[in-house]
Amino acid sequence: MLFHVRMVVKFPFGLDKSRAEELKSAEKKFSQDLQRQGKWIHLWRVAGTYSNISVFNVETSEELHDILWSLPLFPFMQIEVTALSRHPSAIQ
Amino acid sequence: MLFHVRMVVKFPFGLDKSRAEELKSAEKKFSQDLQRQGKWIHLWRVAGTYSNISVFNVETSEELHDILWSLPLFPFMQIEVTALSRHPSAIQ
Amino acid sequence: MLFHVRMVVKFPFGLDKSRAEELKSAEKKFSQDLQRQGKWIHLWRVAGTYSNISVFNVETSEELHDILWSLPLFPFMQIEVTALSRHPSAIQ
Amino acid sequence: MLFHVRMVVKFPFGLDKSRAEELKSAEKKFSQDLQRQGKWIHLWRVAGTYSNISVFNVETSEELHDILWSLPLFPFMQIEVTALSRHPSAIQ
Amino acid sequence: MLFHVRMVVKFPFGLDKSRAEELKSAEKKFSQDLQRQGKWIHLWRVAGTYSNISVFNVETSEELHDILWSLPLFPFMQIEVTALSRHPSAIQ
Amino acid sequence: MLFHVRMVVKFPFGLDKSRAEELKSAEKKFSQDLQRQGKWIHLWRVAGTYSNISVFNVETSEELHDILWSLPLFPFMQIEVTALSRHPSAIQ
Amino acid sequence: MLFHVRMVVKFPFGLDKSRAEELKSAEKKFSQDLQRQGKWIHLWRVAGTYSNISVFNVETSEELHDILWSLPLFPFMQIEVTALSRHPSAIQ
Amino acid sequence: MLFHVRMVVKFPFGLDKSRAEELKSAEKKFSQDLQRQGKWIHLWRVAGTYSNISVFNVETSEELHDILWSLPLFPFMQIEVTALSRHPSAIQ
Amino acid sequence: MLFHVRMVVKFPFGLDKSRAEELKSAEKKFSQDLQRQGKWIHLWRVAGTYSNISVFNVETSEELHDILWSLPLFPFMQIEVTALSRHPSAIQ
Amino acid sequence: MLFHVRMVVKFPFGLDKSRAEELKSAEKKFSQDLQRQGKWIHLWRVAGTYSNISVFNVETSEELHDILWSLPLFPFMQIEVTALSRHPSAIQ
Repeated sequence: MLFHVRMVVKFPFGLDKSRAEELKSAEKKFSQDLQRQGKWIHLWRVAGTYSNISVFNVETSEELHDILWSLPLFPFMQIEVTALSRHPSAIQ
Repeated sequence: MLFHVRMVVKFPFGLDKSRAEELKSAEKKFSQDLQRQGKWIHLWRVAGTYSNISVFNVETSEELHDILWSLPLFPFMQIEVTALSRHPSAIQ
Repeated sequence: MLFHVRMVVKFPFGLDKSRAEELKSAEKKFSQDLQRQGKWIHLWRVAGTYSNISVFNVETSEELHDILWSLPLFPFMQIEVTALSRHPSAIQ
Repeated sequence: MLFHVRMVVKFPFGLDKSRAEELKSAEKKFSQDLQRQGKWIHLWRVAGTYSNISVFNVETSEELHDILWSLPLFPFMQIEVTALSRHPSAIQ
Repeated sequence: MLFHVRMVVKFPFGLDKSRAEELKSAEKKFSQDLQRQGKWIHLWRVAGTYSNISVFNVETSEELHDILWSLPLFPFMQIEVTALSRHPSAIQ
Repeated sequence: MLFHVRMVVKFPFGLDKSRAEELKSAEKKFSQDLQRQGKWIHLWRVAGTYSNISVFNVETSEELHDILWSLPLFPFMQIEVTALSRHPSAIQ
Repeated sequence: MLFHVRMVVKFPFGLDKSRAEELKSAEKKFSQDLQRQGKWIHLWRVAGTYSNISVFNVETSEELHDILWSLPLFPFMQIEVTALSRHPSAIQ
Repeated sequence: MLFHVRMVVKFPFGLDKSRAEELKSAEKKFSQDLQRQGKWIHLWRVAGTYSNISVFNVETSEELHDILWSLPLFPFMQIEVTALSRHPSAIQ
Repeated sequence: MLFHVRMVVKFPFGLDKSRAEELKSAEKKFSQDLQRQGKWIHLWRVAGTYSNISVFNVETSEELHDILWSLPLFPFMQIEVTALSRHPSAIQ
Repeated sequence: MLFHVRMVVKFPFGLDKSRAEELKSAEKKFSQDLQRQGKWIHLWRVAGTYSNISVFNVETSEELHDILWSLPLFPFMQIEVTALSRHPSAIQ
């Protein structure tokens, strides 16, 4: 099942710089593992902002929640989830 | 270049039913032609609504505009365009 | 899988009264069939408004979409879908 | 009487981690007591976010207020309350 | 139990003038009956607009819903309901 | 002259607890004095939130401003003021 | 007492042109009478829009309401009222 | 003096097609005259929508208002005006 | 040329009290100088809030910007600027 | 390809003053280099605010993103990007 997710990252003023770098590295590794597993099937940057638009292919909304909740940057993110379904005009 | 587009369709009360069906058929054909050309690369239904989330792969924003402006349902759509760029964590 | 759905009904001025009554009867029957099937598991009125808050238990977001799209009042509704997951403090 | 409540939790940057854990444990216990008493009759996680959607069955809005005000996480929550009534199409 | 209600009236262009006057008379009578019964305990005009702020004293949200749904102007109103409870600093 | 006022209290993270208690006591006393003078004629809690809905009966908007500006919790409040007038259907 | 009022005019599609002109003439006369009486003390056009920003000097919010409600264009206006008070830095 | 203007065009359902074409031709001519006079110094299409972003170079806000109010499509536009000033980092 | 300006002041928690008083005194003096010069022609308090509504009479938007940017409280303000023009019904 | 960008700068309370000055100088130099290269083709101040409206001429949205992401003030900015295309009435 597909979910469209928009994540916006806001680091609080005062967050230690090296801590932020650690979190970003962990986030990247976490994200790439999920991409390789075919769970996180699209990942785009929204041009000009610290945010992304993603599409996840998961079994259930439980699984989606567990993934997003585990993101290293989760505490610093605003997340908006939209459930998708097949479009009748899609040729794929 | 990739653009994320959300389209929401609102038919005015009073639109002739057969006219609406004609427009929807024309829209489907128009969309599928663009999908086959590799311009309209993703097309999903937003579950529970008369709207879609799409990704277009076009040369320029001119080309994107010309496509969207030519949609048979364009006069009945609200359209929101978001420019995308490559995400540094994307593995593709 | 559970989805939280809020539906708001707005009849356009000029809709024929008997047509509205037909649609409301059809909606009621449609809703009660789905309740009996265990798909539409909660249905509450938002006090003071022509809208409801519902919870659906469906296999996929496809199934949710097909149900909502088929509602007799769908053309006159604003619909907002929220994916739910199990809460770690829930005792059920 | 039924109330629909949406709670969103935002911990301020700088809140001590162990303090946050204490509050979350206390919140869980508090919530489960109310669930066992039949006051807090539904509790769902909104997928992908630190928030829940709940339904309370209480005698009065006073009682609802006293419960919500007493939540251990209350100072870190945004809370939105919606009064529900029976839906004429509900079969229960 | 007290509910705070804000009602905004919007007549559609094209509503027959005498029909509007009938509805307004019926609304006035309906409102005054409820005021005399002690259900509709406050009714103020929002200065400069066609809207009111009211407080209802009812047994349940069911009762509130039944009253508001029965307002002659209900089809032309936007209604927002807020549940009230006793304030700890109130001296009454 | 009547004014409808909605006040929402937000304490900043880091405000000293005993300072907050002092402010709340002062606020209560201040509010009750005005209630006894017949200036602050209604005071309700919005169920489930740290906010109130009030009605003030004052001579002028100057007087209203002076009262609200003097509230001990003023620096921590969002305040929204709405001017009221007599409703033609009110029986009082 | 001073009130700041913003009025936005929206004529519905289908309003007869000569009717619109009549209403605009009546509005102008009505407004100028109030200006001469010293009630409507400022009247500015918001550049580029069919709306104005005004300041009224009236005895009470009742009086303000009666004026605004009587505007010939009232049924086609969105009106927002803000109560003003003397600013401590004003030299007048 | 420079003003940034965003115009969004919404034709009402039911507007005669040939009337719309006349208005669009008149709008084009009107706009090009102002461009040639150096008043309307930038005119861009917002990609994917029936709206534009423009910059005007005028003597006063009066002049801006007179231009916008005279646009053939003015009755069908939402217009948002933003006053600009020289940026200290601009090299021109 | 006239501009309508709304300023809302928000002091951050933690700003030193005497520093705040200094800024407020400087702001008052700055404002009164401009009022005496005939630049800041109206200054009202929005009743019940720490904000004002002002009208400036300046040569250009440059001049307006320079004035607002120089306000001692500028770093703590949200500012909204609206360009005004003469209203055809104004008698002055 | 043209992009319209609005940037709003918000410095957090507590940012060191000399650090802010360094960032502003670096921003100015960075911006002027891009202006000289013909990438940042328009830069205006929004009168009365700490924000700008800009137009960029870049090859791709990737290039736009890389520029904006590299702005010295990027961590303190809210950025909104709008893709532009040629307007059919533009004479240039």
